[in-house]
Amino acid sequence: MQSNNILTLTTDFGKNGSYVGAVKGVLLKINPRIKIIDITHEISCFNILEGALVLNSSYPFFPKGTIHLVVVDPDVGGKRKGILIQTDNHYFIGPDNGLFSFIFEKENIREIIDLTNSKYFLNKPSTTFQARDVFAPVSAYLSLGVDPKEFGAITKEYYKFKLSQPVYKNDYITGEIIYIDKFGNLISNISSDLIGEEKILQVKIGKNEIGHLRNYYAEVKEGEIIALIGSNNLLEIAVNQGNAQKILKAKIGDKITIEKIKK
Amino acid sequence: MQSNNILTLTTDFGKNGSYVGAVKGVLLKINPRIKIIDITHEISCFNILEGALVLNSSYPFFPKGTIHLVVVDPDVGGKRKGILIQTDNHYFIGPDNGLFSFIFEKENIREIIDLTNSKYFLNKPSTTFQARDVFAPVSAYLSLGVDPKEFGAITKEYYKFKLSQPVYKNDYITGEIIYIDKFGNLISNISSDLIGEEKILQVKIGKNEIGHLRNYYAEVKEGEIIALIGSNNLLEIAVNQGNAQKILKAKIGDKITIEKIKK
Amino acid sequence: MQSNNILTLTTDFGKNGSYVGAVKGVLLKINPRIKIIDITHEISCFNILEGALVLNSSYPFFPKGTIHLVVVDPDVGGKRKGILIQTDNHYFIGPDNGLFSFIFEKENIREIIDLTNSKYFLNKPSTTFQARDVFAPVSAYLSLGVDPKEFGAITKEYYKFKLSQPVYKNDYITGEIIYIDKFGNLISNISSDLIGEEKILQVKIGKNEIGHLRNYYAEVKEGEIIALIGSNNLLEIAVNQGNAQKILKAKIGDKITIEKIKK
Repeated sequence: MQSNNILTLTTDFGKNGSYVGAVKGVLLKINPRIKIIDITHEISCFNILEGALVLNSSYPFFPKGTIHLVVVDPDVGGKRKGILIQTDNHYFIGPDNGLFSFIFEKENIREIIDLTNSKYFLNKPSTTFQARDVFAPVSAYLSLGVDPKEFGAITKEYYKFKLSQPVYKNDYITGEIIYIDKFGNLISNISSDLIGEEKILQVKIGKNEIGHLRNYYAEVKEGEIIALIGSNNLLEIAVNQGNAQKILKAKIGDKITIEKIKK
Repeated sequence: MQSNNILTLTTDFGKNGSYVGAVKGVLLKINPRIKIIDITHEISCFNILEGALVLNSSYPFFPKGTIHLVVVDPDVGGKRKGILIQTDNHYFIGPDNGLFSFIFEKENIREIIDLTNSKYFLNKPSTTFQARDVFAPVSAYLSLGVDPKEFGAITKEYYKFKLSQPVYKNDYITGEIIYIDKFGNLISNISSDLIGEEKILQVKIGKNEIGHLRNYYAEVKEGEIIALIGSNNLLEIAVNQGNAQKILKAKIGDKITIEKIKK
Repeated sequence: MQSNNILTLTTDFGKNGSYVGAVKGVLLKINPRIKIIDITHEISCFNILEGALVLNSSYPFFPKGTIHLVVVDPDVGGKRKGILIQTDNHYFIGPDNGLFSFIFEKENIREIIDLTNSKYFLNKPSTTFQARDVFAPVSAYLSLGVDPKEFGAITKEYYKFKLSQPVYKNDYITGEIIYIDKFGNLISNISSDLIGEEKILQVKIGKNEIGHLRNYYAEVKEGEIIALIGSNNLLEIAVNQGNAQKILKAKIGDKITIEKIKK
């Protein structure tokens, strides 16, 4: 697989400083033709799970050969490895701290490289900003066609965290909120596959009974709470033209249950 | 008119999640050479008027053949149409919910297409994220040269809201605040054309008499309130190096009056 | 030096309005092939020093021939000049109000042009938005190969502010916080060169004794305060996986001292 010269950026650097600019500069100095696509730089500081979830919901839509540079890196300069992962369709580069947990679970992994060849780093790489000094130059050289094996040795060891899984018992599914978007929509870890085709069910969050699944937000009145399968095929609780997070005082980790009602 | 391969994005998706990334991925998978330009992803949630105003102040500066993908879509999955508008110089794609009100008012409309041909949608489009599943793929195919009529039937029906108009009576003009920018500048619906060349006038907001029009912010002392014609040819109230919104406790819809003073 | 067709944008316009979009439109209408790279649009309103610091930490990483369009412009429309600076490796365009202070200090200046030739401005430039009406079109024409001297006369006069310098006295260095990043890391004006190779020292902020310099954030326990040399070679105070700004209630201008301890 050749790189397609498209590179996405997902970080917790924030939009108000120079960190994003420095990374883009390094990329362009090595490969002025690289096409940089901002996914987000507003992952909550140090929140590896959030970074992994955002990556998971965006990377599959990119064309074959895209390089995904992902950096949420609380242990920067410490013991965690820097890695390059090649799958059937994509490249991923960043710290080996769980950011790529979903990739390891879902994709066919061709090889994982431990990034140790300092020939491809900036001179005197810092211990606090390896996105700029290690990951950006490696990504740029990869986009120019350098063989992944040039960047270091193949490794079989990597870090993958376990995402809490919903529990299915009798006629009840119990899951939890794993992500809250800008609209305040509460996205759970309960997939549409787990729910199946069953239509008669009762969705609950805390003491709120939300009723059965709907198809789209505006199906209920403005301000009403609604449950539906969102765009990631996950159960989602929302408020039509409102903010479910605020109205329900919800937070990451809150339980959501589904009861399948017998006819 | 051929597409020029430039596509602008104006949405309320926020910069902190995966929605923007997914849309960009879909665009690039279909047309890897498309040039994506972020206008903003920070339109207030569900605020169609704000989306329309931001579009209106940015699109005219883009070159002929630019595609403007605009999504503020509280009724996504519901009854509103998805449309493609071709004018003499631009293409606009998004929900038919008023977002394009200024376009219908100002531009020469060549044709409006009701986007119904699912051949150009993603497989199994969701009911909650049509920016990704409908508008992005249609935009990308348009940029590749697909004829607009391929995407659906020509329609004559569209939704246009009425922006509140200033009232001109005797020597008074009464308008209102329609937009507040990051600096806290209060932008009104009173155009410079309506005011004319008259120099001797008194601008008022609430009980504050601001005096006559100035030419630039730093013409008054730091912290002083000022009225001037802003960069969109609209009357604007500002504070030199300060925040007029905070100082005047102003909000969208607040009245602004101008009194033409007789000599 | 030829422009390399890459242009960076650093402004205080905010991500939620139309200002950034209008500037990008003007650039692309004149040069549809220009490659626009967002550094940030979230410089604090009117904060020239912050703009200068962010520029200073990002521009050096860009390739030769890059155009840096930088606008934090409280005196827009007033007496300040608009300038184009050509150095050995870069072009800088924006208001002459101190934004380029570090450039004047660090770079070899080839020439400074006072931007007065309205042939290269938009028609009827506004007095409130010269980024769109003056700086963007000049930048775009420059990227097309127009000779800098076409845009106005060479000038020798420019504005440069003095950044507060750390004081080195006996075995004490006293500096101050000049920038706080998204993580709450407190970046000082004390460079690693000034500190030298000395390892036995005591870093203090207010009454907090932080101890000697560390190498990376995760070297201490989560929540502990740490001092290290950051990615810009400046002394930085941070909290491992926490926010030093909040924990120390720190702000720009707060003093930081280093005591060199005798053996």
